[in-house]
Amino acid sequence: MLEKPFTMNQTWLECISCGHRVDLLEERIFECPKCGDLFDVRHDFKKKKPGEWMNIFDGRKELKSLVTNPLYTSGVWRFWEWIMPYLPDNLLVSRYEGNGPIIPAGPKLSKWIGKGIEVWIIKEGENPSGSFKDQGMTVLASIAKAAKAELTICASTGDTSASAALYSAIAGIPCAVLLPGDKASQVTTVQLYQPQLHGAKVIILPGVFNDAMDVVAELPKHFNVYLANSKNSTRIEGHQSTIFLLAQAFAWQLPEVIAAPIGNGSNLSSLGKGIAIMASHGFESNTMLLGCQVEGVNPIAGAWERLDKRFPNTSEWLGEYKPIPKEKLAETASKAARIGDPVSKKKVMRSVVDTKGVMVTVSEENQNEAVGIAGLDGDNLCPQTGMALAGVKEAYEKGYIEKGQTVAVVSTATGLKFPGVVKYDNAIVKAKECSVGAVADILGLT
Amino acid sequence: MLEKPFTMNQTWLECISCGHRVDLLEERIFECPKCGDLFDVRHDFKKKKPGEWMNIFDGRKELKSLVTNPLYTSGVWRFWEWIMPYLPDNLLVSRYEGNGPIIPAGPKLSKWIGKGIEVWIIKEGENPSGSFKDQGMTVLASIAKAAKAELTICASTGDTSASAALYSAIAGIPCAVLLPGDKASQVTTVQLYQPQLHGAKVIILPGVFNDAMDVVAELPKHFNVYLANSKNSTRIEGHQSTIFLLAQAFAWQLPEVIAAPIGNGSNLSSLGKGIAIMASHGFESNTMLLGCQVEGVNPIAGAWERLDKRFPNTSEWLGEYKPIPKEKLAETASKAARIGDPVSKKKVMRSVVDTKGVMVTVSEENQNEAVGIAGLDGDNLCPQTGMALAGVKEAYEKGYIEKGQTVAVVSTATGLKFPGVVKYDNAIVKAKECSVGAVADILGLT
Repeated sequence: MLEKPFTMNQTWLECISCGHRVDLLEERIFECPKCGDLFDVRHDFKKKKPGEWMNIFDGRKELKSLVTNPLYTSGVWRFWEWIMPYLPDNLLVSRYEGNGPIIPAGPKLSKWIGKGIEVWIIKEGENPSGSFKDQGMTVLASIAKAAKAELTICASTGDTSASAALYSAIAGIPCAVLLPGDKASQVTTVQLYQPQLHGAKVIILPGVFNDAMDVVAELPKHFNVYLANSKNSTRIEGHQSTIFLLAQAFAWQLPEVIAAPIGNGSNLSSLGKGIAIMASHGFESNTMLLGCQVEGVNPIAGAWERLDKRFPNTSEWLGEYKPIPKEKLAETASKAARIGDPVSKKKVMRSVVDTKGVMVTVSEENQNEAVGIAGLDGDNLCPQTGMALAGVKEAYEKGYIEKGQTVAVVSTATGLKFPGVVKYDNAIVKAKECSVGAVADILGLT
Repeated sequence: MLEKPFTMNQTWLECISCGHRVDLLEERIFECPKCGDLFDVRHDFKKKKPGEWMNIFDGRKELKSLVTNPLYTSGVWRFWEWIMPYLPDNLLVSRYEGNGPIIPAGPKLSKWIGKGIEVWIIKEGENPSGSFKDQGMTVLASIAKAAKAELTICASTGDTSASAALYSAIAGIPCAVLLPGDKASQVTTVQLYQPQLHGAKVIILPGVFNDAMDVVAELPKHFNVYLANSKNSTRIEGHQSTIFLLAQAFAWQLPEVIAAPIGNGSNLSSLGKGIAIMASHGFESNTMLLGCQVEGVNPIAGAWERLDKRFPNTSEWLGEYKPIPKEKLAETASKAARIGDPVSKKKVMRSVVDTKGVMVTVSEENQNEAVGIAGLDGDNLCPQTGMALAGVKEAYEKGYIEKGQTVAVVSTATGLKFPGVVKYDNAIVKAKECSVGAVADILGLT
């Protein structure tokens, strides 16, 4: 049996409201028992100067032959000391995640967004399961292993279940995926194939998503089961790597604006937390976070916009916040972000407030147009990435982003998982005959 | 207008049979006008010692901030001097290709293949369009740009058209994809979406695949059109990067065996050519190539097996070779490799003969089982990769691979493009009620 790899004085869960602390490895609760609010994972970080940290993290990127230690192969665990410093590296459950490229927006997309700013895209869809979830799930699965969980479980019809199943397989821990009965018929082969391929047990439950979520949240209280949904804040720890990866790529000076789409909010939550951790280690930045939602699915952005105040505080914002009930949620191509009451809403607000950030609501049309324009530059992006790109355009037009600034956009999934965002239904030409002449005519060759 | 970037004395096309040379940039022919055989791209390489080459290529992998030059961002163009040495780097059409990880086979897969050998997988599905084709297409599109082509064209229903459209978009060259009429109805949304997203014109031609191929091959003779199908050997130049990437990852000593699936044969062709180029630069190896085909779609492997001779020469092998007519081709999950008369068969034979290599035919069952087993280790592989993994198992059982040897397997596409290889039709459990107890019962929790 494994010894308990770290103590509660080294790494712990801490309520974001009342500061109450519980043991990360022992407890299977995801809300504060005193006040009901969310937890943060906190660490007693080692103290080093910024230059020392840079040397450690840059050194891990140096060319090495056939190394398999995640500290060298993973873009998450490269930042081990900032992600989960007391977890021994032989317990890490990793699969070369966090190595997607950071690429400049192509010429057509840059023009569409607006001339005068420099836009970069961090492609987190190029992860093992095809989405950014892997950068959080590698941490969750490592903790599940360290905590000797017998099973991981999640309620999900999409990217979360694919990622949970993949990392559970690597960890050697069985995984169960619960599907709400009312949605089960809409789940496609592609969506079901990933968890099944990775050995997860798929169970359909009578009822709606919230009923399934209730069961998933209740199970860990009775059994040695580990929750893989967003409520589990260990995932947030891994998503902080987005900030660290951007910092390293930009010579340890974060870009002025970082934009991301909001579903349950784990991205925005972790971006803000990552910036705060870097500040605590002496890396100052003036980075502003830009949270993006699409019309009709914008509970957080909608509240920010109704307040109409450039720098609200979290309690004002929360006062204006209203969940969007399921029956009123708009349809959107961004199915992975179609959430009316995001689990991490308070952490999102904290991140935006702390970085003097901005929220925008974008139109479905602009979101999907961004995907189409990027396609003409040779990029295959998911609609959630389109949401963030349209958000940058919107924020630039509204003056929140200034000329000359550099913007990084978090691309959350590969477009291969979301085909059909742009419609080309009538664009195929049928040639009258199979000849060089007929094809040359269609193509306008002369 | 661009000047012609290199001369025929620097880089040229050379017939693999009669040695006849033609101009790579001027000509739009893909078969030798004297004897009808295939071309190789050849270069007047600069001479350096192995240690000097290692310093150049290793140096390009060092951490750099925000660099966009493909020599530093691409795993193909990192080896510029060995890939296309006289093409100026400002003409390269690149998108961070060739950066997929080289990962050890997981525990379940290793056990299934057979204990005692070490298997690594180079994941070329983690390329921009989701397949290994990108590592060749980056070179093809760069040459198309250098040759001032007005249009690229290919006949394809799969990975080739996705890659051709993506790289043509980056190059700013229009692209046309021709679909044979008899296959058009089988093309799925996912397959059509990629070329359309990247702005390609999709044309359906009456007739079968070979009719479409005839038109595609004829067009470049009359118009300034560049062929993106396998006949164009510029793609082979890029696929050599697989060898160079493996060499670099394995401390400049290639593994004893390199295995790959065979469709049209560009992979095996380029693996052999890459090994030969390394040898010409003073890097000796005793690497054996292992070519894999699936039963009923195995014209090259079948001929090798019928010869029943460990070291045949190419003309013996060719004498035994028989194409498999379309109506006799077996159905297989490896749709991307379902080709009865591979374009590059002679280059495949040359590669296998030159490296004292081996061919195997695997069963459809083993191919798909490999995908399933790898899935349980947390990898999502395509069936073509399963073919190569089953081939390693087969070659090890037959004694072609010896205990203690290291094997690298080329993984040609992401499993996201080939869902449904493993069937789980009856594996979903329906819970009788939405309760903790019902789920705990199904999962056997106590």
